[in-house]
Amino acid sequence: MVGREVPVTVWSREKVKAAIVGSTGYGGVELIRLLQAHPLVEITSVVSFSSSGQLLTEGFPHLTNVLNRVLDEVDVPLLASKADVVFLATPSGVSAKLVPSFVDAGMRVIDLSGDFRLITQELYREWYNKEPAPADYLSRTVYGLTEVFGEEVKGASFISNPGCYPTAAALGLVPAVQEGWIEPSSLIIDAKTGISGAGRGLGLQVHYAEANENFSAYKVNRHQHIPEIEQTLSRVLGQGVTVTFTTHLVPMTRGIMATMYGTLLGDKSDQDFIDLYQSYYEGRPFIRIRPQGKWPATKEVSGSNYCDIGFSVDRRTGRVTIISVIDNVVKGAAGQAIQNLNVSMGWDETTGLLFAPIYP
Amino acid sequence: MVGREVPVTVWSREKVKAAIVGSTGYGGVELIRLLQAHPLVEITSVVSFSSSGQLLTEGFPHLTNVLNRVLDEVDVPLLASKADVVFLATPSGVSAKLVPSFVDAGMRVIDLSGDFRLITQELYREWYNKEPAPADYLSRTVYGLTEVFGEEVKGASFISNPGCYPTAAALGLVPAVQEGWIEPSSLIIDAKTGISGAGRGLGLQVHYAEANENFSAYKVNRHQHIPEIEQTLSRVLGQGVTVTFTTHLVPMTRGIMATMYGTLLGDKSDQDFIDLYQSYYEGRPFIRIRPQGKWPATKEVSGSNYCDIGFSVDRRTGRVTIISVIDNVVKGAAGQAIQNLNVSMGWDETTGLLFAPIYP
Amino acid sequence: MVGREVPVTVWSREKVKAAIVGSTGYGGVELIRLLQAHPLVEITSVVSFSSSGQLLTEGFPHLTNVLNRVLDEVDVPLLASKADVVFLATPSGVSAKLVPSFVDAGMRVIDLSGDFRLITQELYREWYNKEPAPADYLSRTVYGLTEVFGEEVKGASFISNPGCYPTAAALGLVPAVQEGWIEPSSLIIDAKTGISGAGRGLGLQVHYAEANENFSAYKVNRHQHIPEIEQTLSRVLGQGVTVTFTTHLVPMTRGIMATMYGTLLGDKSDQDFIDLYQSYYEGRPFIRIRPQGKWPATKEVSGSNYCDIGFSVDRRTGRVTIISVIDNVVKGAAGQAIQNLNVSMGWDETTGLLFAPIYP
Amino acid sequence: MVGREVPVTVWSREKVKAAIVGSTGYGGVELIRLLQAHPLVEITSVVSFSSSGQLLTEGFPHLTNVLNRVLDEVDVPLLASKADVVFLATPSGVSAKLVPSFVDAGMRVIDLSGDFRLITQELYREWYNKEPAPADYLSRTVYGLTEVFGEEVKGASFISNPGCYPTAAALGLVPAVQEGWIEPSSLIIDAKTGISGAGRGLGLQVHYAEANENFSAYKVNRHQHIPEIEQTLSRVLGQGVTVTFTTHLVPMTRGIMATMYGTLLGDKSDQDFIDLYQSYYEGRPFIRIRPQGKWPATKEVSGSNYCDIGFSVDRRTGRVTIISVIDNVVKGAAGQAIQNLNVSMGWDETTGLLFAPIYP
Repeated sequence: MVGREVPVTVWSREKVKAAIVGSTGYGGVELIRLLQAHPLVEITSVVSFSSSGQLLTEGFPHLTNVLNRVLDEVDVPLLASKADVVFLATPSGVSAKLVPSFVDAGMRVIDLSGDFRLITQELYREWYNKEPAPADYLSRTVYGLTEVFGEEVKGASFISNPGCYPTAAALGLVPAVQEGWIEPSSLIIDAKTGISGAGRGLGLQVHYAEANENFSAYKVNRHQHIPEIEQTLSRVLGQGVTVTFTTHLVPMTRGIMATMYGTLLGDKSDQDFIDLYQSYYEGRPFIRIRPQGKWPATKEVSGSNYCDIGFSVDRRTGRVTIISVIDNVVKGAAGQAIQNLNVSMGWDETTGLLFAPIYP
Repeated sequence: MVGREVPVTVWSREKVKAAIVGSTGYGGVELIRLLQAHPLVEITSVVSFSSSGQLLTEGFPHLTNVLNRVLDEVDVPLLASKADVVFLATPSGVSAKLVPSFVDAGMRVIDLSGDFRLITQELYREWYNKEPAPADYLSRTVYGLTEVFGEEVKGASFISNPGCYPTAAALGLVPAVQEGWIEPSSLIIDAKTGISGAGRGLGLQVHYAEANENFSAYKVNRHQHIPEIEQTLSRVLGQGVTVTFTTHLVPMTRGIMATMYGTLLGDKSDQDFIDLYQSYYEGRPFIRIRPQGKWPATKEVSGSNYCDIGFSVDRRTGRVTIISVIDNVVKGAAGQAIQNLNVSMGWDETTGLLFAPIYP
Repeated sequence: MVGREVPVTVWSREKVKAAIVGSTGYGGVELIRLLQAHPLVEITSVVSFSSSGQLLTEGFPHLTNVLNRVLDEVDVPLLASKADVVFLATPSGVSAKLVPSFVDAGMRVIDLSGDFRLITQELYREWYNKEPAPADYLSRTVYGLTEVFGEEVKGASFISNPGCYPTAAALGLVPAVQEGWIEPSSLIIDAKTGISGAGRGLGLQVHYAEANENFSAYKVNRHQHIPEIEQTLSRVLGQGVTVTFTTHLVPMTRGIMATMYGTLLGDKSDQDFIDLYQSYYEGRPFIRIRPQGKWPATKEVSGSNYCDIGFSVDRRTGRVTIISVIDNVVKGAAGQAIQNLNVSMGWDETTGLLFAPIYP
Repeated sequence: MVGREVPVTVWSREKVKAAIVGSTGYGGVELIRLLQAHPLVEITSVVSFSSSGQLLTEGFPHLTNVLNRVLDEVDVPLLASKADVVFLATPSGVSAKLVPSFVDAGMRVIDLSGDFRLITQELYREWYNKEPAPADYLSRTVYGLTEVFGEEVKGASFISNPGCYPTAAALGLVPAVQEGWIEPSSLIIDAKTGISGAGRGLGLQVHYAEANENFSAYKVNRHQHIPEIEQTLSRVLGQGVTVTFTTHLVPMTRGIMATMYGTLLGDKSDQDFIDLYQSYYEGRPFIRIRPQGKWPATKEVSGSNYCDIGFSVDRRTGRVTIISVIDNVVKGAAGQAIQNLNVSMGWDETTGLLFAPIYP
């Protein structure tokens, strides 16, 4: 008979207790969605600066019955007593000030802001135009681009989670750049994001009537993710890389596509790229390489932690076009943060993250 | 230390083997998304009329790594040997012909089409304008509106899954109608659906450039879900109920809202309705009642199996407005079908279905 | 030879000079779009409270080359010297204070706010919860629902422009209600609007990521347009009419649909309704009646001043469903205001308004 | 007194009679929208292959009262007797066969398809994979990129209207390429279109539920507009230019953005580009150059014939990013076709085209 019960012995684990700081932004709310279904994690505190004392479900009725909790305020000792790990889904500038006390309190810290991603304070000052985090904390963080720097993430207790654009761009470029297949000075990244990427803050740019039926460019050549992308590419190549990077707003809620152009060094085919990437990302279940003549679309990863990549070598121009897509809120934020928790804890990388994309 | 492993004994179950017929429509693809994550179910066959022999991922690259299977053709004996339960996400008219052989083969059958929902062949002929299913099979099916007729679903081996609109409408109306709070002849249901409700078939009505930035009505007073809604309301009230029912297309992919109007019999307040519904749906985790002065929005249930309901009593007019929302592809199709499997198997109703809505 | 020039004598007119107060809201910007192409009007001042002194094109680069003007501040004597007519596209509460001085200055006034629509101060206080306009000015205004009260608009110098919802609802109901075909106490109006209807102000409700892929209800049974609709219907029927009215937000920028339900008094067919409405609206070019079995969609009037109406009589329930659509920013605001100017000036009603809907 | 009538003498013109072949596609319907408001043109025939004999308004109810005509069939002698000019908004491959007979019949011909844009038959065969138009007709056509080749358009009786992407790309690149400011081999064009660009034909790619909330690339490095762009740039530069060109589908109905990258030859600033383009396009009212630090968005030209252009010089990389936007159905098709008629007739270029963009 099907479905009957049989006794089995499994290895279970005590759940890790997690606090989420910045629970009322899109990154925080996505962490809640994913962590409440994670088999090895228990959410013990949801923290908000603006709404502490309120029910989480007041601002987010979709979480009714899912997580009925009151929003806590930021109290480091209290949080340290309630949680093992703290996720910070806070705006840049805020994490720089908060994170050190969480680190000092001995908590495992996963920061989703941009405050600990750039190695030098100078770069941060230049591109964020804010006061950088203390240098000694900068030097203690691990940059959690798991598929590239996963070895460093293992056992790490302080992880800086990559930005959404840098995740899409780096995952699409690293194998070819590292292998020396692309002229480094030729790299152009034309990136597009759904509007949730702008966060939950108000502004004309995200007003429905302005953003709908509209496609616009912003921060052209000035986006703060430029140095983060260059830092990763420079690191894997072993020499300085400078990229041209443009960001656009797409009238949709979720999704990032990076369309990337590079001049080929040597004669390569689509299949060469496919083989290289499949080899580089072997054993990395969240990277999916499209077959020849196919390119991924953002909807094909929506709601999931996948990053899909496709290629088109153009012999007429001697260039390759590489297209990578992610869900900016999952692989570009909350999902990758949980993936980093998984790897840092020694768990399977996919724990709690193996859900299918929502389609259509 | 957190996260360390400890041995525990749990009651596990042999997985139920499931086949999905109509795997290349939106209902079928959603069944795949949900069932592949269901802890007690294993998908052993995905069946397609139009694309058998192809890889499922050819038409649905988003399922790469999620379910890498070849689409089977419809072969009842073979399917009966491979699967315990068969879900049919087939167009109306197709199920009528196919289902009897699956039933006869001893499979558990959950049919998502409209072919076995109406009790009489006459109603089907009138509203579907097609040849009805054989009467003796019609009489053997259980109508799987779990929150209302759940007792019948327990142990049932042949379940007809409710339509998307009838689910939203009936869940919003049943408690008040059954309680005699609303004048039955006064019921008006103004329903709106996202465009996935029209299926994956091509047509001008679903062409992006025609449907986008557009709000339209269709099949006004003629929709085949009218008799299904009336049948349910008549059954719980114990007398014939006739409703006015309008359907509209909303420029979004997923979601149904039913805005429903009824003349009050007796003096009732918002809170009376809230109390009645909370009592009626007690122990039913997928029904969420909004507090006074709040009404649900479709996005608050998107991607989930929830049905959210809110009320507004208007003393000026002596009417109540009841608003219910569901995700048409989940609670209105695949999710409710799995809920029916769960209940019919004696499992917890929520098994494999307790994921949070996707927001934003 | 085609296209050669020939001299002809025509009757031209001196252009009317127009000022637009509230030029940086959606109503004001649409007035600019339409008036700058109006053959008998010249825009001589665009006025803004928040942005006076700035170039109009700074906030609205789409108007570059179309109207390169600096935004003026509100200065009644100055405006009175520069313009013959003033359009106020200001929020409710603002017009109540501003309009009297424009009236006193002898300007022709067309107010697009809700401040002068309700006949009594009591109704305004109750539904707007603000201080009403002075009673003596209320009594001097003409309610500019041109197709219904057009005779009063002729020659009027102070016109209150109807609300967007009341326009769609009244145009769809007036002929049948006035004719006594519908039981007045049975009227239910289920209305849906594109998000521009909420104005250009910021708020979570209009945040793209919240409003997109979402359908929501708001102000259920409490919308301030309820008394305006009831006032019009009561007036044409000659007795008090109370309606149930629900408003919803549709994820699109422009468009309103009102789906309206009424119990029939007497036996009427679809064709009876079509004939009645064609007769009632004869000579009214902006009203278009759909043939039997067809209902209008919002896209079919988008960007235009048309109001399209369709019917479905249901003999099962004894009710009629009436569906009317408008573009909320044109026929529901700026277009109707210009139509009112045309009629009040004795010009052809369609002057400057005979452009086709944008499709797709 | 304002608005009074005075007699004046003006130079009027006999209207040109126009036929539109392909009236039931998006290009044809837009020609109808624009031409019916054109002061010097009268539509005397609307022609459809698939729907001749039907009322135009049957498939396009939005044109009720705007143009109540029956669709004609393709009958060259009859059309030649009814019309002076014929617009062909037909699919590629169809125009190649039809156009010669219209030319031979002495009609002024404006072809919106791709069949007469490429100078050589070889290029057409290679990129369109269809039989090219006869060579002697290819050599008689004028390529109607009015702002660049306007001198040739004057008096021309057979005009090939540029493609949507080539219009956006060429208008954004020609001044800088012609001036020698950009390394020709470095050009990369990352283009995005609203979904109306795919036409009214059915397909999964334009199914709402597939295209909505999705951003996808297509025909990467293979789009048939590549040789058209290269042909224009090669012509103005006087040497062969090869470009990398990618096309994407944006979930919106209208609009094209081309984001273009080139390596600078010499030291240029944003302002240098602004000055160059303002000078190049002086007297060209449909080209609008954005000030420094501003880039155009597609909504800012929606529904209009404008092409807006912005620049960002990046000294870090030595590249310029040029962004141009058009409405693909207007400036990218019907609007530019009418602009070409105007210029070819010796009329003012803007006749019938000076309407403001629809915003929001």
